Amino acid sequence: MKHTLSVLVENKFGVLARVAGMFSGRGFNIDTLNVAPTQNPEISRITATVHGDESHLDQAIKQLNKLVNVIDIKDFKTGQFVARELLMVKVNANSETRSEILQICDIFRAKIIDASPTSVIVEVTGNEGKIKAFYELIEPFGINDLARTGNLALERRMFS
Amino acid sequence: MKHTLSVLVENKFGVLARVAGMFSGRGFNIDTLNVAPTQNPEISRITATVHGDESHLDQAIKQLNKLVNVIDIKDFKTGQFVARELLMVKVNANSETRSEILQICDIFRAKIIDASPTSVIVEVTGNEGKIKAFYELIEPFGINDLARTGNLALERRMFS
Repeated sequence: MKHTLSVLVENKFGVLARVAGMFSGRGFNIDTLNVAPTQNPEISRITATVHGDESHLDQAIKQLNKLVNVIDIKDFKTGQFVARELLMVKVNANSETRSEILQICDIFRAKIIDASPTSVIVEVTGNEGKIKAFYELIEPFGINDLARTGNLALERRMFS
Repeated sequence: MKHTLSVLVENKFGVLARVAGMFSGRGFNIDTLNVAPTQNPEISRITATVHGDESHLDQAIKQLNKLVNVIDIKDFKTGQFVARELLMVKVNANSETRSEILQICDIFRAKIIDASPTSVIVEVTGNEGKIKAFYELIEPFGINDLARTGNLALERRMFS
């Protein structure tokens, strides 16, 4: 089962290496991960998607909680959170195919952010389903280069 | 000086921990990092921004190149690449402030992706300057929660 974890950590030296090491040490492969400072520059948020067995993951989360620089961990369940991903993709494009690519971009509100005589770079944001649908339509043109952020997620409501 | 590094790695167990460990072991703090599979599911791309001295970074890159699962490293210089970041932010919002928040979102083509009686979650994509400008305008309303992907970057042109 796929899990989206949101981990608040102190923005200190080596914390990411320790968190990533904890997952790999316990046999979890991290599918995607992103980390950046929050509104408080002393605190960073790691959002990670991992595949794995529920009970093993619970153990891993307990272990994570013991790391001294970890402040909070949330294991998001369906419906509790909104998730978005940013995809940037360099697609083959020439005078014949460019207009069709533009149409596909329009449908998905994707933006062309660079263009050369033989390619365009497209940026698109969405949930997993939207990104997948966009990729399926754009892939036949030929993908030259691709970068994804992986899921970014926030809790739906304040429970305060 | 801030550097944006794009590292292609084999999508294998523990690679992220090794790459992150290499940076922290050499005294580099990773500002932001994201990792996800590329168009080839066996290859992942790590995009990282780090601060540091040019000569130390060169050494770190050489060291990274020696890691067996690292396929390619690019140290992007200004103008060579397009970079985008995804920001999700939960902002305090009530019936009085909501319309002003909506106006700010319109200016930045930001999208409201969730709303409660007391807050909205906004998604916005852009380069560093745009994200910063948006944040400055939205911050006075009160930030409840924030998640950022950090820079995602692709080379501007194919040099083939």
